[in-house]
Parts: sequence; structure tokens; C-alpha cells
Amino acid sequence: MHKLLKKRSKKAGLLPGSLLHIGEQKTHDIKITIISYNETVYEKKELTSIEEYVSFFRALSLRTEKPFISWVNVDGVHNPEVVRTLGDIFGVHPLVQEDILNTDQRPKTEDYGNYLYIVLKMLSLRSDKGNGLQTEQVSLLVFPNAVVSFQEEKVGDVFDPIRDRLRNNKGAIRKEGADYLAYSLMDAVVDNYFITLENIGDKIEILENELLENPGQATLKSIYHLKREMIFLRKAVWPLRDVISTLSREESSFIRPATKMYLRDIYDHVIGAIDVIETFREMITEVLEIYLSGISNRLNSVMKVLTLIATIFMPLTFIASIYGMNFKHMPELDWKWGYPAILAVMGVTGVLMLILFKKKKWV
Amino acid sequence: MHKLLKKRSKKAGLLPGSLLHIGEQKTHDIKITIISYNETVYEKKELTSIEEYVSFFRALSLRTEKPFISWVNVDGVHNPEVVRTLGDIFGVHPLVQEDILNTDQRPKTEDYGNYLYIVLKMLSLRSDKGNGLQTEQVSLLVFPNAVVSFQEEKVGDVFDPIRDRLRNNKGAIRKEGADYLAYSLMDAVVDNYFITLENIGDKIEILENELLENPGQATLKSIYHLKREMIFLRKAVWPLRDVISTLSREESSFIRPATKMYLRDIYDHVIGAIDVIETFREMITEVLEIYLSGISNRLNSVMKVLTLIATIFMPLTFIASIYGMNFKHMPELDWKWGYPAILAVMGVTGVLMLILFKKKKWV
Amino acid sequence: MHKLLKKRSKKAGLLPGSLLHIGEQKTHDIKITIISYNETVYEKKELTSIEEYVSFFRALSLRTEKPFISWVNVDGVHNPEVVRTLGDIFGVHPLVQEDILNTDQRPKTEDYGNYLYIVLKMLSLRSDKGNGLQTEQVSLLVFPNAVVSFQEEKVGDVFDPIRDRLRNNKGAIRKEGADYLAYSLMDAVVDNYFITLENIGDKIEILENELLENPGQATLKSIYHLKREMIFLRKAVWPLRDVISTLSREESSFIRPATKMYLRDIYDHVIGAIDVIETFREMITEVLEIYLSGISNRLNSVMKVLTLIATIFMPLTFIASIYGMNFKHMPELDWKWGYPAILAVMGVTGVLMLILFKKKKWV
Amino acid sequence: MHKLLKKRSKKAGLLPGSLLHIGEQKTHDIKITIISYNETVYEKKELTSIEEYVSFFRALSLRTEKPFISWVNVDGVHNPEVVRTLGDIFGVHPLVQEDILNTDQRPKTEDYGNYLYIVLKMLSLRSDKGNGLQTEQVSLLVFPNAVVSFQEEKVGDVFDPIRDRLRNNKGAIRKEGADYLAYSLMDAVVDNYFITLENIGDKIEILENELLENPGQATLKSIYHLKREMIFLRKAVWPLRDVISTLSREESSFIRPATKMYLRDIYDHVIGAIDVIETFREMITEVLEIYLSGISNRLNSVMKVLTLIATIFMPLTFIASIYGMNFKHMPELDWKWGYPAILAVMGVTGVLMLILFKKKKWV
Amino acid sequence: MHKLLKKRSKKAGLLPGSLLHIGEQKTHDIKITIISYNETVYEKKELTSIEEYVSFFRALSLRTEKPFISWVNVDGVHNPEVVRTLGDIFGVHPLVQEDILNTDQRPKTEDYGNYLYIVLKMLSLRSDKGNGLQTEQVSLLVFPNAVVSFQEEKVGDVFDPIRDRLRNNKGAIRKEGADYLAYSLMDAVVDNYFITLENIGDKIEILENELLENPGQATLKSIYHLKREMIFLRKAVWPLRDVISTLSREESSFIRPATKMYLRDIYDHVIGAIDVIETFREMITEVLEIYLSGISNRLNSVMKVLTLIATIFMPLTFIASIYGMNFKHMPELDWKWGYPAILAVMGVTGVLMLILFKKKKWV
Repeated sequence: MHKLLKKRSKKAGLLPGSLLHIGEQKTHDIKITIISYNETVYEKKELTSIEEYVSFFRALSLRTEKPFISWVNVDGVHNPEVVRTLGDIFGVHPLVQEDILNTDQRPKTEDYGNYLYIVLKMLSLRSDKGNGLQTEQVSLLVFPNAVVSFQEEKVGDVFDPIRDRLRNNKGAIRKEGADYLAYSLMDAVVDNYFITLENIGDKIEILENELLENPGQATLKSIYHLKREMIFLRKAVWPLRDVISTLSREESSFIRPATKMYLRDIYDHVIGAIDVIETFREMITEVLEIYLSGISNRLNSVMKVLTLIATIFMPLTFIASIYGMNFKHMPELDWKWGYPAILAVMGVTGVLMLILFKKKKWV
Repeated sequence: MHKLLKKRSKKAGLLPGSLLHIGEQKTHDIKITIISYNETVYEKKELTSIEEYVSFFRALSLRTEKPFISWVNVDGVHNPEVVRTLGDIFGVHPLVQEDILNTDQRPKTEDYGNYLYIVLKMLSLRSDKGNGLQTEQVSLLVFPNAVVSFQEEKVGDVFDPIRDRLRNNKGAIRKEGADYLAYSLMDAVVDNYFITLENIGDKIEILENELLENPGQATLKSIYHLKREMIFLRKAVWPLRDVISTLSREESSFIRPATKMYLRDIYDHVIGAIDVIETFREMITEVLEIYLSGISNRLNSVMKVLTLIATIFMPLTFIASIYGMNFKHMPELDWKWGYPAILAVMGVTGVLMLILFKKKKWV
Repeated sequence: MHKLLKKRSKKAGLLPGSLLHIGEQKTHDIKITIISYNETVYEKKELTSIEEYVSFFRALSLRTEKPFISWVNVDGVHNPEVVRTLGDIFGVHPLVQEDILNTDQRPKTEDYGNYLYIVLKMLSLRSDKGNGLQTEQVSLLVFPNAVVSFQEEKVGDVFDPIRDRLRNNKGAIRKEGADYLAYSLMDAVVDNYFITLENIGDKIEILENELLENPGQATLKSIYHLKREMIFLRKAVWPLRDVISTLSREESSFIRPATKMYLRDIYDHVIGAIDVIETFREMITEVLEIYLSGISNRLNSVMKVLTLIATIFMPLTFIASIYGMNFKHMPELDWKWGYPAILAVMGVTGVLMLILFKKKKWV
Repeated sequence: MHKLLKKRSKKAGLLPGSLLHIGEQKTHDIKITIISYNETVYEKKELTSIEEYVSFFRALSLRTEKPFISWVNVDGVHNPEVVRTLGDIFGVHPLVQEDILNTDQRPKTEDYGNYLYIVLKMLSLRSDKGNGLQTEQVSLLVFPNAVVSFQEEKVGDVFDPIRDRLRNNKGAIRKEGADYLAYSLMDAVVDNYFITLENIGDKIEILENELLENPGQATLKSIYHLKREMIFLRKAVWPLRDVISTLSREESSFIRPATKMYLRDIYDHVIGAIDVIETFREMITEVLEIYLSGISNRLNSVMKVLTLIATIFMPLTFIASIYGMNFKHMPELDWKWGYPAILAVMGVTGVLMLILFKKKKWV
Repeated sequence: MHKLLKKRSKKAGLLPGSLLHIGEQKTHDIKITIISYNETVYEKKELTSIEEYVSFFRALSLRTEKPFISWVNVDGVHNPEVVRTLGDIFGVHPLVQEDILNTDQRPKTEDYGNYLYIVLKMLSLRSDKGNGLQTEQVSLLVFPNAVVSFQEEKVGDVFDPIRDRLRNNKGAIRKEGADYLAYSLMDAVVDNYFITLENIGDKIEILENELLENPGQATLKSIYHLKREMIFLRKAVWPLRDVISTLSREESSFIRPATKMYLRDIYDHVIGAIDVIETFREMITEVLEIYLSGISNRLNSVMKVLTLIATIFMPLTFIASIYGMNFKHMPELDWKWGYPAILAVMGVTGVLMLILFKKKKWV
């Protein structure tokens, strides 16, 4: 339950712009990595203490006037102090600092004049947490010469290829500006959706096989579990469409026209992911309908067997019970062939009933 | 029932602008509190008689031309006289006065040139009233140097943090204008929604557990009770989106650009609340579907037991009743091993039936 | 049936602008009342013959150039002659005359340059006609100095308060223009909707109680009866939203800015009515779902009883029938305690079955 | 099936603008009627051979420069030659010629600069073809001084009133231009919809009565038959709304402002027809739901009877079978009042069961 | 499963613009055919080696400045090298090259200034692959004097008529520009949809017959199979509407006004195809509802038979079992006419039960 509604109510009554972490604390240590690069230079630094940030950033804020691009990556956002210090150095509005801490945001983008604020959702299926879908908030601050990214947890797998490209000067990334870096980060997040979607596709396939072989109450629970995961997915992916569309259409000084073409490409991927999500929703609905009509079908089969048995044996038992009566004057009882005759009558009755059932296609 | 449709029909045939309280009378005494403040001054006054209002407001209307911000808070709106007197002093249009009294309004905002009229809905879950969802109308009149707020009942808990901030000069509130005060009031109302939503989230969780353990007609009633509460919630929250969106986008002399950034923040919260409401609606629908498919499943289980019993015992009883017949000439009856033989036949028949059931996966 | 589709097909093949009354003839006599007023003068005249109309209107059309407002109210529209005569005097387009007679119109507004044509629907629940919902068409022609209103039937109750205000010079009505009069008439019609809505709300409440106490096929019929009434209501009220919205937004010489504020008020009422209608629709759907799940639940209860009885008595009867067999060699029959022993076996079997049922929560 | 999807695939691979008749051939002979008229002149000519067309049209194309209006009506469109000859004379684009032959078009309007192309659907319920709904395509080409109409079949009944008005100079039709003639033809088609709709309304009423009296599998088939007819109706009528709306709004040299007012009137009729169609769809859905809940209700009734019978007779039969056992030592059997006593016990048991059923409201 | 979601996840982490084939490899050899033509010249060349491409295209890129139109058709897109070589020669953006290889695109169009990129989906029902629906991606690059088309597999049947028209100079195709060629290719793809749709229409008809004659679990599977195919169809056809609409409306230097008229014609066909798809979806839903209500109906029939049998034979067996009791004092047993009397009682009871059933319309 808490997954759908983080304890945002803690904030009721606080000052607007109050910094308070909302969400699960997913990692213990906050780790800040700074990669500064241009076409020729590549420098990487990891910070560990809050004092170091301040001195480093003061230096950095001087350096960023040179044609350097800096990527400041923050793993872990549960410490308001870190966000505030960083935010104040970069001149970030208190409401944005509040949003970075509040990991219950919808994907959105906001243009604050001297920087761009972008919220994305990262998806992952964790086997260690009951195989459930996890969403994680990624906040990006795009400055003319720097990108600051905030993650709830170290998601190295997803951003590692970008770090690799920066280090080894692969592709155009070191020739392009901060907007291209921001695009690359967003692209990594969106490409990652398809891994989650394929995983869910596999689950649907498994469910379909289960339906054919051995459907039960557990199948129903799996169906509803998947259905609920799709609600999550939609919440994470749908608003992204507007975010990317806004970024690629609006006149903004941060996104250069050449980069907009790349954003249009992400836009296509997001539309593709939404298409798959909607298709999955329809398929899960189908699976549910098949499950429910399967219950009705099995009820029908059970009832047919019951009716078959009752229809055959009730008349036969009635006939037998007639000749079990103790009347003094029951001439049939004394007949020599009475017993075989009545057995024959019973046999004929039973066969007639079976024929009737065959004709009604119930057997 | 009366909750969904207040007795607005009382007004049919009356003059437009007729002042008539529509809704439940939720409090007995009307209490008017005036807080006047600027960066250095803080003054609070409570009024109790109607005469006092007039004299005070005349003075106040003189004073508000000075760089003072006044917050006039009215608890209880069931007395048309109070609304009219206040309204006339502030030069409020009769239709607005009518709307303040009519507590059956949708959230809306209207720009009357020299003041702004905003209607919000406060939500609360009252344990003293059958644990039901209560909505309460909050009307705000925003003037360049004053905010007049009308509540149906004293909702001190929600506005108290703002009073506290004003008294102790916490945050920026005493440095900002009437628009920031209005924003703070709206923010308090919207933040409060999440408490209600979490409460409903808990109820859904309880329902889900009930479904697994002991579903019954009472569960169904709880489901529909929740469903109806969601109708309320939507009615209260959905229109707010347009209200905040209008306030933050329109060119208005009352809302300064700096405050619009804060309104955009409320907008995000309202969108978040709507997201949660829609998710809850989907979850309640799911819970209902699980409940209904549970009924079908249990019917199936019951029928399988019935069929099992009938299928095993009907043929056996038939066999027994054959040898209960009183025919004179029934050779089997005289056989020495007739009785054990027939018992064996019965046992084999029963076991065969059970095997058949196992094969059809009905046991 | 005819209520949903009036015999409009009578018109197929006729000239456009052909005057033909479509709809039920709801009243026998056509009554025309003319109220002419300004701030100081109030004059009322009732006409009874067609000749009188012409002479009166010729005079009136002269007089309306003076600063007089005239309200011509026509009760009954089944006589094309009356509509044509009035229409020709006022210079009304033949298509408008046709629409006035055709009582199967959707609410709409059309600006014909020198006058405005407005169609509304009046709602009433008539106890004398099977307690069904009746809709009645009200057509308004708004001229700079006159309003002509057409009703299917005398709906005195609804417009009487306006007549009263005009006679007694209550409120602003005699100070304002024809647009304010038109607004007042529309307001009276819309205010009246809430009486109908409350009535339907009561019916839903009754249905909900019936569901709990004694649901049956009659309940189902009531539910569908209400559902169908809601279709009517929507058809009558929904298009009104656009009508009022058009009137209050468009630049029109007939509606002065001051009156537009009042129209905005009606707009809020119409939105409120639509909200209530949509809520009622959701509630009726809920009631239907509860009814249907109630059927399933009762089927389940019935089946449990059947299964309980069969599961207990079938094995017992089988045991008894074994000892009813007439085999010569059945040693148990000769045992002294055979009978009590077998009774004990039966008792234990029955109790075991009951315990099994208790464990499965079927009793 | 072929009704929903005409064999358009025949065209795959052909040149665009290839003339090929798509649809059923509904009439054998193609009949071309030309009515040329102005305020004083009325001339009618029927053509039978293809040679005659050419010579006549050459003459006509000279004459249409005079202030004459010509209405060329073509009954039957299965001959591509006729359409091509006519099309070439009037300078019609090959794609339009193709669309005229392809009777599987959606209603649409296209402005080709020197003429206007309009496609409509005519509806009819034919008793000779299994009482099914038939749609027929009517294509109109509107030139400044001529209208060319193409019908699949002679639909004299619908256009006859217009021919009559032209012949007898009734109404304004001979005083107006080609646009008014086109309007008259469209009006005739739309007015005709209401006859079909009333017919379907009657069918729904019959279905509702059938539901109350004698529902069966046949009722279900009728419901789905009607449902499918509604799909047709929607396909034919919905797009017409945009067609008329486009015609009445766009700046076009073919439609004069005076005629636009008449088009607005057709627009209202189309909206009315759509309203009725949507209402019918909701009613058919209702009828289906009542049918399905009727099945559940009857299942319940049947099961109650079964349970009643089983619950009463199973215990009784068990009691009787106990005293049918052949134990030597059964003291009750020797009691004088044993038999009446046991009959009394059985009677009491039966009555108790009945009372239990009454209490549970199952009888 | 893989049909709904191709393994796009392979791309996660790669550089944007990385060329990687996504989708099934449907053909082994890549075949490139070049047709160059103008009104007088027609030349066709097939290339087989990658070296040949380069030399040919260099020559071609020189020649295309002459008023030649070239159509380069590529069968098979699984080789990134081929796409890259071609793309680089024509100056195609890396993102477009990536999209050509990724056969999981939605239909779309993009204007890259010096060329137009169009993605379409080809539909086919393959009998060799379990009669399932196959979609195949067709990418078009439209240059001022050339069209490059990429197909997953040789779909000669669909484009052959165009090749034929080019070779034999049929129709206007050799007189028109590259935009007309692109239109012809799109038209061929869209016309081909109707063959697939007719095929599905036939399947629905077969299903409807199966429903009436012999419905079973297999029918249900066929219904859901069709439903899933409709999801595909919608995904392939719906976005095409926007594609064609964009092409025919936007100001583009590639599409001349004369060709836009032809695009409008394709637009009508796409709308027609969408109409058919939506109708099919409604019909499949209907078929499913009929199937499900058929299950309920059959359950009812079965239960009626069971109830009939039980209701008749349970009381009779009870009567017989009474006279099977072994009480000493049962006077009836000694009566001479006891046996026939009790048989008569049984007969009357049975007949009464039957009459009751007839009255309740259960037989």
C-alpha cells in the first residue's frame, strides 16, 4: 500500500519550501561524483564529506564559466542538508529543492530561467523485494554548462554506459553541450523501460500458460498483481510524454535545435513504451476475462456431471425402491422373471437417459 | 443521501442574489478573527457582535490603504446577515455573497476586477460521524491588501500553522503580500487532502485483507461505501486543478509573478492528489472484481463437493436398493458371499468415481 | 417509447419552414399574456382571440420603440397559426417558427442579428402520469426591448415569482433590460431542475433501502426506470451548458456585460446540476451492481444449504440402504447391538460432515 | 458480413482513379433525369442511351451559363462508363469519379474549387430483404448552376416531394440557386432518417415486451441484431455532422449565406438523430443487461425449487430408510404406534424445513 | 509474445544512432533494385554486392540532378552495413538509419529538410505461420528526385503493380515526380489492408456460425486470438491517419499540391480501414458476449433438467421408502388394493409436478 502513496502527509502544515525527505530511504550513504569534461579534458572526482562539497563547488562554479561541461551525480537524496547545500550553490529555488527530496513527484519539466528542472522515473524489477516493480525518482538540473542529477539509489547499471562514453570519448558526447548530456541521461532511463516491459511481457506469457494448465486462486492473484504494476508503469511513463514533448517544442535557451532532434527520438521511444503498456493492459484484461469465463465453464462441466448422475440414478433408485415396498399383494414379486425383467427395465431407462444427454450434447 | 445534494431547491423562485444559507449548519456561533500584519507589526482581534464588525471594518477599510495585510477569518456561514454586512463593507457582489452562503459550490475562481473570489473544498474523515468523509466549503476573497476567508466550521487544525507563522514571523509570510497569504491558505487545504487520502488508502488495505480472510456481504458494503467516498473526493479535488491552473496562468493584478511559482507547486500537489484518487478508484474496482470472482469461485467449490458426494453415493445407494427389493427369485440373495461381494462392488465403484474426479482435477 | 422520439417523421417531405406541431398537445387553449413595464409603469393584458393579437401587436410594435420592456408569454404551441402570426409580427425567420412548434429540440441558442433565439427544457415529475419525468420545451425570443416566451403548457409555478417581482417591483428586474428578463426566466427554469433532482435523489435512497430489505424483480425494474430517466435528464441539461456558455462569452448586442455576470451564475448552477446527474448515474450503476451481486450471493447461500443437506443425508441414506438389503448372510443384522451401533455410525458421520462444513466456513 | 465490408479489395493494385463499381448492383437500368428550371421555366427530360447523354450535356453545358439551374439525377451507379462520361463533361476529378462508383464511402464533403462533392448515406428498412437496415450512397456534385446527384437505386419516395415542389413552383425552391437545391436534397435524406429511427424505436419496444413475457435465445439474437444495426446507423449518420458543419461554416463560393442558415437547420436535425441513436444504444444495452440478469434470476428460482425439494425429502427418505433396515433387534418396529409416530416425526420435519425456508424468504 | 514487443532492450546502453537490427530476420539475402525513369526513359538495375552499391550510388547521386526519378528498393533490413552505406550516400541522419533498422516503429512521418522520412506497416495473413497476422515495416525516404524504400522482406505482390505501371508507362506515374511515386507506394500498402480486413471479416463470420452450432473452449480461444489480432491492426493503422493527415496538410517542398489531393484520397481509405477495424472490434465483443451468455443459458438448461428429475423422483422415492419400512403394524401393507393405490398416488404426484413445471415454463 505505501508504495502507491508515500507519506506526504508529514508535510501538512510545514512552510512551503521546507526540506523534508519523502519516500523510502533506499541507500545509506550519499555519494557525489563530479565528472568535468570537454573535447580534450576528462576529470572525475568523488566527494565524501559535506565540507568538501562546498569548497569543490565554489571552485567548480568558477570553472564552469570556462567551456567545461560538469556532470554532478548525487546518489541518495534522503539528506536535506546535501540537497540544500548543492541547491544554494547552484542558485536553485527552494521549491525545486523540496521537489528533489519529495520522491513522490510525477515526471515533469519546469523552466526556471537560468536552469531547467526535469523529473523522471526509473523502473526496475527487483528479485530481492518479492519480484515487485520499483520506481525510483531521477531529478535533473540542466544548466548551460552543467547537469546535476539526483538519484534515490546508486543506479550504476543504467548510467554506466554514459560514464564509459565520456571516459573513452565514444560518440559525439564530449563534443556536445550540457543539453546533450541531459538527453543521454534521459535516453538511458527510457531505454531501460523496455527491459522492465519485456520482463512483464514474460510474466503475462507465463500467466497465459498457467491459465491453460492449472488455473486457480493463485492465478487470479498474479493477474491482479500484474494489473497493479501496470498502474505504476502508466503513472511513471505517461506524463513523460508531455515532458519530452515540451522540451522538444518549447523555445528554450538550454536545448539547442540539434539536440531537439534527439529528443524527438526519445519521444518516439516513450510513445512506443506507452503503446506496449496499453497493449499489456488489454492483454491482462483478456487474461482476466478468460480466467473468469473458465470458472463459468468449469461450473458448467461440474453441473453436467451432477445432472448426468442424478438423472440416471434417481429414476433407477425409484424403481428399485418400489419393489422394496412390503405390500402383501405385489404380484410382480412372485413372478419368476420379475427380477431379471426389472433389471432390464432399469438398463433400458439408463441407456435412454444417456441417449437423451448425447442428443443435448451434454456428454 | 442529503450529502450528495444539499437542499438547493429552497432557492427556486427567489431573487438572484438572495442570501440564504444552503447546507448543514455545522457550528452554532459565528466567530470572526482579524489578523493584521506587516513585516514589523502583528495584531489579532476577535469580534463577537454584529455591531462591532461594522465599526471595526470601517476602521479597517481605512487602515487597509496603509501597507497592512489583513486576514479576516469567519468561522460559520449560516448567518446571512454576517455575510451581507461583511460583503457590503468590502464591496462584494451580491452573487458572490450568495455563493459564500451556498455551501454546495464546486471549487472555482472568479476575478471581479477589484477582488478575486476562490472556492475550495476542505476534506475530513470524522470518527464521530460514522467515520464518513466530510467536505466543507472554504471561500476566499483576495483583495490587494486583505484576504477574507469563510469556513463552515472552525477548522483550526488546518490554518493554525499559518497563524503560528504569522505570529512568530516564520518564513517569508510577513514579508509577502495578500496573494502569498491566500496561497498559504490554499496550500494548507491541499496538503490536508493527503491525510484524508492516506486514511482511505489504509481502508483499502484493510478491505484487501478482509477479502482474503473473511469476505461477506459486509465487505461488499464497505467496498461501495469507499466507492461513494471516492465520488465525493473527485468532486472536491478535480475542479481545483482548473482553479489553480487559471490562477497561475491568467494575467491578474492580485497574483504577483513570484507567487505564481508557488501556485504551480500547489498545482503539482493537486495533480498528485488526483493521481492518487484515480489509482484508488482503480484499486477499489479491482477489489470489487476480486470479491465477485471470489463468489463464483466459492460457488464452484460448493458445487464440486455436492457433485462429488452425489456422484459417489447415488450409484452406491442404487446398488443397495436393488438388493433391497423383495422379489422372490433373486438368486444373489441366497449366495453365501453375496453380501461381501456386493460390498466389494460398492467399494470399487466409489474408488473409481474418486479416481475420475482426481483426473478431472475436481478434488 | 414515444417520449424518446417524437413523431418528427411527419415532417419528412415537407417544405423547410413548414409549420407543423411536433409533440404531444399538452393543453387545449392557447393563452397569450403580455406584461409591459419600465421602472415606473406596469401593465398586463391577456388576449384570447387571434384577431386581438394582430391589433395588439401592431400597437405593441409601435410602443416597443419607447423605453418599454414587453414580455409576451404564450402558453401552448400546438397551433401553428398563432406562432406564425406572432412570428411574422416580430419578423422571426420561418425556421425559428418551425423550431418553436417542434417540441423535440435540443437546448440551443442562435443569434439572428436582430433577435436571439433560445431553447430550454423544463423538467417536472408528474404524479398524475405514472410519476414519470416530463420534459417541456420553453422557447425564448430576446429582442432589444421585448422577450417572447413559448411554453407547451401553462407552467405558472415556475414563472410566477418573476411575474410577482415585476408586479411588485421587487429587486432590480424593472430597472434592467430585456436581457435581464430573459436571464430571470432562464434562472427560474434552471433553479427548478434541482427540485426534480432532489426528487430523483429520494427515489435512489428508497431503492437502496429496498435493496437491503426485499430485493426482487420489481427493484430491477425501478433501477432501469431511473436509469432511463437519467438519460432524459442528461439530454435536457447537458446541452444547456454550451448554451449558457455561448451566451455569456459571445459578443452580442442583446446581452449587456452586467447581465453576463448573472449568466455566469446560471452557468455554475447548470454545472452543479450536471455534477449531480453524473453522480446519480454512478449511484444507479452501483445500485444495479449491488443488486446483481446480491443475486449471486443468494444463489451461493441456496447452494450451500443444498450441498449441506445432500452431503449429510446421502451417506446416511446409503448406510441405511445397505442394511435394507435382503441378503441371507449378513451377520451384522443378527448382532444384538447392530442397530444402535449403526445409528451411532450414522450420527458420527453426520457430525463429521458438519464439522467439515464449519471448517470450510459454509455454515 | 458483406454488408459491413464491401469488396473493396478488388481495387488493390489498380491505378488511382481507376473506375470500378464497388458494392451490390442494386438496379439493372441506369436512368438519368434532367430537370432544368428557373423562376419561370421548368423542363424535364429523361435519357436512355449513352449517346444521348453526350449530346444533351454538351448542349446543357452551354445552357448552364444562362441563369438556369439544372438537376441531373442518376439512378444506378454500377456502370463506370456513365459516370466517366458525365464526369468528363462536368470536368470532375478522376478520384471523385472513383468515389462515386465506390459505394463504401463515409459521408464527406470536398471542395474542388469549381464544384463541391458531397457524399451522404440514405437509410431504409426493407421488408423484402429480411427486414434489415439498408444503406445507400447518395453522391452530390454541386456546381454554380447545376447539381448532379447519383443514387444506387431509384429512391423516388424521398426526392419526389422536391420534384413536386420544382414542378408546381411551391416554396422558394425555384427562386433560389443550386445550393438551395442541394440543401433540399440533403434535407430530404436527413428527414428520412427519422422514419428509420422510429421503426427501430418500435423494434426496441417490441423487444422490451418480449423480455417481460417470453424471453429466450431468440430474444438475445434480436438484441444483437439491433445492436449491429445501430453500428450501421452510427457509421452513416455520425460523419454527417462534420459534413454539414463544414458546409455551413467554411467560406465557399457555392453556399450563399442565406442557405447556410438552412444548413444550420439540417445540422440540428443531424444532432437530433445522433442523440436518438445514442439513446437507442443505451436502451439496447439496458435491454441486454435485463435479459442477462433475467437468466441469473431464473437460475436462482430453479435452484431454490431444487433445494426446497431436496431439503424436505432427503431427511424424510433417510428416516424411512432407517426403518427399512433388516436388523433383528429394532425395538421401534414392534411398537404398536411406531408407524404413526414415525409418520408424525416425518410430518414435523417437513413442516420445520418449510418454516425455515419461509424465514429465509426462499419460498 | 515476441510479436508484441520486439527485443528493443538489446539497445539499452548503446550510443544514440547505433545501428542494430531489431526484429525478426525475415529474409536471408538483401536485394537492392533501382528503377530510374522519366517520361521517356526507363532503366532497372539489381545490385548484389556492397561494393557495387557504393559505385552505383555515387553515379546515381550525380545523375539525380538530371530530371530523373529514381526508386531504390531495399528488400531486407537486417544488415546495418547496407543501411549505413545507403544512408551515408543519401545524407540520412543517423537516427533515421537507426529507425529503419528498428522494425518496431510506429507509423510516423518526419521532415528532415532535404528529405522526408515515412514509416508504414504492411499487413499480411500468412498461412504458413499458423494463419497469424504479420506486420512488416516499410520505410520510405522521399527526396526531390528519388524515393528509397526499405522492406523487411520481398513483398513483391504489393509493389509489383507499380513496377508494372512504371515499365509500361501506364497512368500518370512516369509524368509525375518522386512525391507521386511515394504516394503510389503508400496507396499500395493501404489498399492491401482491405485484403487483410476481409480475411478477418471472414473469420468473424466463421466464428458466428461456430457459436450457433458447436460452441466450446476452442471458440473462446479463437475469439481471443482475433481480439489480439485487432490490437495489432489498430497499432498499425491508427497512427497512419495522423501520418497521412500531416503529409497532406503541412507546407512541404516534397509534396506538391496536385499530389496532396491523392493523399486526401489515401486518407479517406485509412479512415475507412479504421472504421472497419472499430466495427470488427465491436463485433468481436458481441461474439464474446453471446458466447458468455450462451454458457449461462446452457447452465440454466442443465439445472432445469436436474431440478425436474429431482423434483419428480425425490417425492416418489420417499413414498416408496415409507412402504419399505419394516414396522409390524402398518395396516396399508395388508390392504388388497394398497399396492395399486400407492402406484396411483405416485403417478398423480409425478403428473402434478410436471404440470407445475409447465406452468413455470421450465419444460
